[in-house]
Amino acid sequence: MDPNVAHRYRYRRPASGMTFIAHLFGILAIMLSLVWLLHYREGFDIDSDNTNRIFNVHPFLMIFGFIFMIGEAMMAYNTVGADRKVQKIVHMLVHFVALILGIVGLHAAFKWHEKRGLTNLYSLHSWIGIGTFSLFCLQWLFGLSMFLLPGASIETRERAAPWHVNGGRALMYMAIVAALTGLMEKATFMGLRHQSEANVINFLGLSILLFGIAVDLSVSLGRFA
Amino acid sequence: MDPNVAHRYRYRRPASGMTFIAHLFGILAIMLSLVWLLHYREGFDIDSDNTNRIFNVHPFLMIFGFIFMIGEAMMAYNTVGADRKVQKIVHMLVHFVALILGIVGLHAAFKWHEKRGLTNLYSLHSWIGIGTFSLFCLQWLFGLSMFLLPGASIETRERAAPWHVNGGRALMYMAIVAALTGLMEKATFMGLRHQSEANVINFLGLSILLFGIAVDLSVSLGRFA
Repeated sequence: MDPNVAHRYRYRRPASGMTFIAHLFGILAIMLSLVWLLHYREGFDIDSDNTNRIFNVHPFLMIFGFIFMIGEAMMAYNTVGADRKVQKIVHMLVHFVALILGIVGLHAAFKWHEKRGLTNLYSLHSWIGIGTFSLFCLQWLFGLSMFLLPGASIETRERAAPWHVNGGRALMYMAIVAALTGLMEKATFMGLRHQSEANVINFLGLSILLFGIAVDLSVSLGRFA
Repeated sequence: MDPNVAHRYRYRRPASGMTFIAHLFGILAIMLSLVWLLHYREGFDIDSDNTNRIFNVHPFLMIFGFIFMIGEAMMAYNTVGADRKVQKIVHMLVHFVALILGIVGLHAAFKWHEKRGLTNLYSLHSWIGIGTFSLFCLQWLFGLSMFLLPGASIETRERAAPWHVNGGRALMYMAIVAALTGLMEKATFMGLRHQSEANVINFLGLSILLFGIAVDLSVSLGRFA
């Protein structure tokens, strides 16, 4: 690999305007998901007798716990003002938080299906969601063993870095596709059209998408600036 | 800008294995869309008295005419064995074909709504679709005036290139989100669950997503190889 390229994988420029925009859209998405689930729906509680409240844990944790966290973890090299080793550990740990909250979020969807006697894993949303989460777990283990634990040589790391970076970005977009197909499924299933709840869901979907694009540009433009 | 980076924007490596995988998923997506629309639905005809046949023009042209074409246009620098100027013209022209077929595809959706007395632009799918297509038209005009027509200096082009490349990739993922929310909306609206048609739609959605990821990796890994 060209040593100039390897260099860009080790040192990124500090937080840019695009990183700031990403934070804003991420916070907007979390706020809109709370407006939707607390105001228009019945709030969330994983141990409720009200199955709708069990379900609502799922979108909230996949948006706040999974997508927001993986985006922030990807931007850790822009936002954490510390040396490379600390940035890598933050990058790994925030992804680990996303992994744990993602498991709880997936559990909520399965628990809701079970309580309501619904079948699992028939929709495009569920296929993409499960596929993305499984690949994400493999990517996390791959990143940990390749880039944090000792063992891999510098040359091996430099060959693996473009796959880790570009594959990680593809996984983030997969997570966004999963989220937006989920919102689309829910809105269509509930027969929402021009109600204000439909608009809240649409703006929530747009915020998630724009968060992902801003995270992508924050990382990819950072490497060329 | 680092001259090594500008160099990578001017010269890409020839078609890689990832480009080949992208072609395969693209062709699979086109085949599955034909299976779905010809076998399970009533085929397509923009001038039919059967409004379902008018609608069916929409998914087919957005998958074959828009997403497949923009993916192939993005990979032109890997696949067209000619000098840089010819590659750029092919890249522009294939995007132009996508733009024209996309307009016809969007027209089909509006015509179907009008014939059935349905309201327009209420769903997350429609918002993202219209937004993506509008930004795509601006990106095409931006690319033409910046990189093909004379006028912009080398320095201006080098500053604009990362925005064009990374912004173009974000637009492709937006188009994929639009397509998959559309498939999810249609499948949910029709109440499909475990029928074979539901599985065809799910595999169609997965093929479109994997096409997009392979196009992304084909372009982004190419620049680091």
